[in-house]
Amino acid sequence: MGTQVARLLTEDADELTQRIGAPVELVGIAVRRIGRVREVDLPEELFTTDAKALVSRGDLDVVVEVIGGIEPARELILTALEHGASVVTANKALLAEDGATVFEAAAKAERDLYFEAAVAGAIPIVRPLRESLAGDTVERVLGIVNGTTNFILDAMTTTGQGFTEALDEAQRLGYAEADPTADVEGFDAAAKAAILAELAFHTRVTIGDVHREGISDVTAADVKSADDMGCVVKLLAICERRETPDGPAVSARVHPAMISKSHPLASVRGAYNAVFVESAAAGQLMFYGPGAGGAPTASAVLGDVVTVARNRLADVCGPGESTHAQLEVLEMGRARTRYHISIDVDDRPGVLAQVAQQFAELGVSIRTVRQEGSGQDAQLVIATHEADDAALAATVQALRGLEMVRDVSSVMRVEGGL
Amino acid sequence: MGTQVARLLTEDADELTQRIGAPVELVGIAVRRIGRVREVDLPEELFTTDAKALVSRGDLDVVVEVIGGIEPARELILTALEHGASVVTANKALLAEDGATVFEAAAKAERDLYFEAAVAGAIPIVRPLRESLAGDTVERVLGIVNGTTNFILDAMTTTGQGFTEALDEAQRLGYAEADPTADVEGFDAAAKAAILAELAFHTRVTIGDVHREGISDVTAADVKSADDMGCVVKLLAICERRETPDGPAVSARVHPAMISKSHPLASVRGAYNAVFVESAAAGQLMFYGPGAGGAPTASAVLGDVVTVARNRLADVCGPGESTHAQLEVLEMGRARTRYHISIDVDDRPGVLAQVAQQFAELGVSIRTVRQEGSGQDAQLVIATHEADDAALAATVQALRGLEMVRDVSSVMRVEGGL
Repeated sequence: MGTQVARLLTEDADELTQRIGAPVELVGIAVRRIGRVREVDLPEELFTTDAKALVSRGDLDVVVEVIGGIEPARELILTALEHGASVVTANKALLAEDGATVFEAAAKAERDLYFEAAVAGAIPIVRPLRESLAGDTVERVLGIVNGTTNFILDAMTTTGQGFTEALDEAQRLGYAEADPTADVEGFDAAAKAAILAELAFHTRVTIGDVHREGISDVTAADVKSADDMGCVVKLLAICERRETPDGPAVSARVHPAMISKSHPLASVRGAYNAVFVESAAAGQLMFYGPGAGGAPTASAVLGDVVTVARNRLADVCGPGESTHAQLEVLEMGRARTRYHISIDVDDRPGVLAQVAQQFAELGVSIRTVRQEGSGQDAQLVIATHEADDAALAATVQALRGLEMVRDVSSVMRVEGGL
Repeated sequence: MGTQVARLLTEDADELTQRIGAPVELVGIAVRRIGRVREVDLPEELFTTDAKALVSRGDLDVVVEVIGGIEPARELILTALEHGASVVTANKALLAEDGATVFEAAAKAERDLYFEAAVAGAIPIVRPLRESLAGDTVERVLGIVNGTTNFILDAMTTTGQGFTEALDEAQRLGYAEADPTADVEGFDAAAKAAILAELAFHTRVTIGDVHREGISDVTAADVKSADDMGCVVKLLAICERRETPDGPAVSARVHPAMISKSHPLASVRGAYNAVFVESAAAGQLMFYGPGAGGAPTASAVLGDVVTVARNRLADVCGPGESTHAQLEVLEMGRARTRYHISIDVDDRPGVLAQVAQQFAELGVSIRTVRQEGSGQDAQLVIATHEADDAALAATVQALRGLEMVRDVSSVMRVEGGL
């Protein structure tokens, strides 16, 4: 991505100068090692391995940080701000883990900290949430924010493959890393969920607040079961505002979920990303595009560079971190969800009554129930109404203990209406 | 829409104050007639019929204009700017007809003129184009920017209805006006196309530069023919950048077109809007949401009010009109398009050769040709490669003159890849 940023800064320098209203000059590039082959022909004297010295120069207007991870990125960003530079970053991990530190430093330094590239790659989602929707109340954000998992689930849906086969294919095609943990276990999506929740609800949300489940347990049977229901399985980052007896609260979570094929997110294929936003006045909005890749992410970085440079010229800052609402961040158990549960049961009288009784005892209302097969293959397919996730999880736990229940073969949350 | 803006300004005043960093006060509302029933309970003394006096007060920070049309909107906006107010407008007609006058007045007054609500209702598209993509090169914008025509074409696709029946239904359901001309003949979409083209290409484009064809000539047979090709018919606003021998140029046009069902725009149903953007670095992006309606449009207005108010507090302006690129705006004949043509022909030897000869003479390359039916029902279905629209139009004209051609029964442009 750094290479693409340098390329665009160089190739489009004249146009960027017009748009900013002042010349753009690339004055230094910190790299780990001098001498790697690079796509862009840049003067050697621009390169240094001493990042700390570069960002401490004191004559920089904007520093672009695209190294990722917590350290040394955090230290470099803090140093850049202290020395009078505004910062553009693509660092989701740092913002989700410890955004407070860098945003506070930016506010203290009276400099900008922009981060459009940190969430959903090239898709403009930060400006829409923090500026376009600033006069509205966001109620829910549903995001497909990880291209690797979307590619894998898409392949499972299209071909009937299991998770392992689909992951192998994704790795072969370069859509998944050799160590795919950060993607398939939802860590990457959880960082983005934290950032989206903070933007949407003006409340500090960190990755530690985000409930996280990956897709490695999603089976071909789950995908088939979703298809039977007119749904597809997606790994969703879900940020919700919820009225509680103690006032409004928010939750953020990442897990696989079934969504109706008629939902706009259902048709987001392959490695694309999309963020679906529901707000009180605007209604349903969706933002769609490439979620990763050097050039797309560089586009997002450059957009921020132009804005930040304009702000520097005008000697102002754009909107900073907005956490004034300070809403309570709910634990997963208190999030409202719906479950879709498939149970292998003994096919004899009274089984449905016993199962239904179990739901009723835990306060979970059944929306539909369907019996499939018979004898040894008898299965109950149950969709619930919305309930606290804790009650739904407890129901599944209790079902596993029933004598007539041979197995709870599939459990998946349902999102986005049905 | 004015009612919804007033409602949100009142109900969400505390939250808006937090987001702006200063109290928000609604100090006056100009209406045509005092005493109409209103949804919102507002003090009577806020209302006036003297709009000119209101915007001339001199103590206003922001004036919101949602009356539409050229006059008196233009005069009121100019007066507001002269008297020190920034302006938020939803007025697509004025911006597309004479944006230069009001943008120049805003620049001279050193005040903001924001207009997110003027294009595609609640969908944030202005900020993404002028800020998020400011470091990128936009190559093409394809927009479904008129909900009425999208509803009608969707109904024709779903039910096989003709245009007139579908329009009747749209009027019955409130999706089309009693006089539907502005929507169905593409005037509304053309105004939005001009605004989008100007934003995308940093070049002044007015509604007079936009080639415009409506949907009233689209037949059930056209829709059926599209379906046979795996396509749907949409009314598209198309803004393109094109390399010519004289350098880069742009074009803007509105017409019905076939797009593949696999294109993200194809699944935009009913009265929804969507804007699809292709740019050099970011790749393909899409923005989707409600394109009209009081509350959604008010959300866009309020987002602008928050930004403009923050700018006032900081005593700065956001990005103004950007027309520095000054690219040539091409006439329709020089836009590059592809045609899909159905021709009723006499079923005898040599007809295809004669037809193909006609294409060749005008320099149009055929991509596929298919013969359907036989005898009296023989039909050639031809898809072309990309060519200048003038050459394609001349080809259709010439085909009509061929003796073996009984009728050119359907002509439609094809967009968005196939």
